[in-house]
Amino acid sequence: MRTAMLAGGTGEWEITAVRPVAGPGLDAAARLRVVDAALADHMAGAWRLDGIASNIRYATAREAADLRAVQEGLGRPAARRAVLIPIAKSPQWWALAQDERRHIFEETSHHTAIGMDYLPAVARKLYHCRDLGQPFDFLTWFEFAPEHESAFDALLLRLRATREWTYVEREVEVRLSRP
Amino acid sequence: MRTAMLAGGTGEWEITAVRPVAGPGLDAAARLRVVDAALADHMAGAWRLDGIASNIRYATAREAADLRAVQEGLGRPAARRAVLIPIAKSPQWWALAQDERRHIFEETSHHTAIGMDYLPAVARKLYHCRDLGQPFDFLTWFEFAPEHESAFDALLLRLRATREWTYVEREVEVRLSRP
Repeated sequence: MRTAMLAGGTGEWEITAVRPVAGPGLDAAARLRVVDAALADHMAGAWRLDGIASNIRYATAREAADLRAVQEGLGRPAARRAVLIPIAKSPQWWALAQDERRHIFEETSHHTAIGMDYLPAVARKLYHCRDLGQPFDFLTWFEFAPEHESAFDALLLRLRATREWTYVEREVEVRLSRP
Repeated sequence: MRTAMLAGGTGEWEITAVRPVAGPGLDAAARLRVVDAALADHMAGAWRLDGIASNIRYATAREAADLRAVQEGLGRPAARRAVLIPIAKSPQWWALAQDERRHIFEETSHHTAIGMDYLPAVARKLYHCRDLGQPFDFLTWFEFAPEHESAFDALLLRLRATREWTYVEREVEVRLSRP
């Protein structure tokens, strides 16, 4: 299913901050909603990003099973904070072969392993959009209880310090809150 | 770039056969054109399939280099035959982890290695469409000179005999010709 992140005047999530991390940012807006893209076509908004929850691209069967055993889904009542981080990687990244990207992703940068350290507190969902002709390659979505915000910040710092992140050429951090 | 395969009354390629191999086929049509999808929105047709030439999903750096050294591009004047084969794989395939799919793709089914045997005679291009909400996961496009048609037929038989192909649940063969 194609999902739309629609920023504007209405939506379940209040946008508390929009921070450009690399490259151009996104316009400020009051609220954000996450909807089926087919419905979003008739909704007005300040900006809209679409993505698709697609198949696994790097995780091995063992890693996927480890993740499934620990992670929790989105929508937990206690998860009143969320962060949307749209990311675009460089042409150099996409020109790499599958084994080279996997090597940087996990064997060098320990992307899955770092994320595991913050489970189940930080729930995570990845939407792909590179093939949709969107300005970003991925929309990453994180959800957690307010008391886990500092743990989430630590997770972000660790991921941004990896070799994988040297291939990120655009990144925006959209902080969200719901009561 | 998003590419559209548009079947109808006009186009560079004459459609000489439409053969359902697995699952529902596609309607018969006289001709086919391959165009930028943005242009196709204003064109009428019997059917239309869209895909995107995306990044490498399985090949290693070594395999990709081996392919680049031998393969030739589309559009060679002698390549007066083409075959469009749209393919959809089963949910079981897409539920596999990356290492499991790679294992079946190459280590078990020798997909890249089989294709290498027919280079440079059979030029090949892969378009991804699973994430575009299309009825197929891939559009595979092959181009060759008329004298290499039997070699291409042998290539098809070998691929369809692989374990990878047990995951194919829809496949249509569209044979094309140009003067």
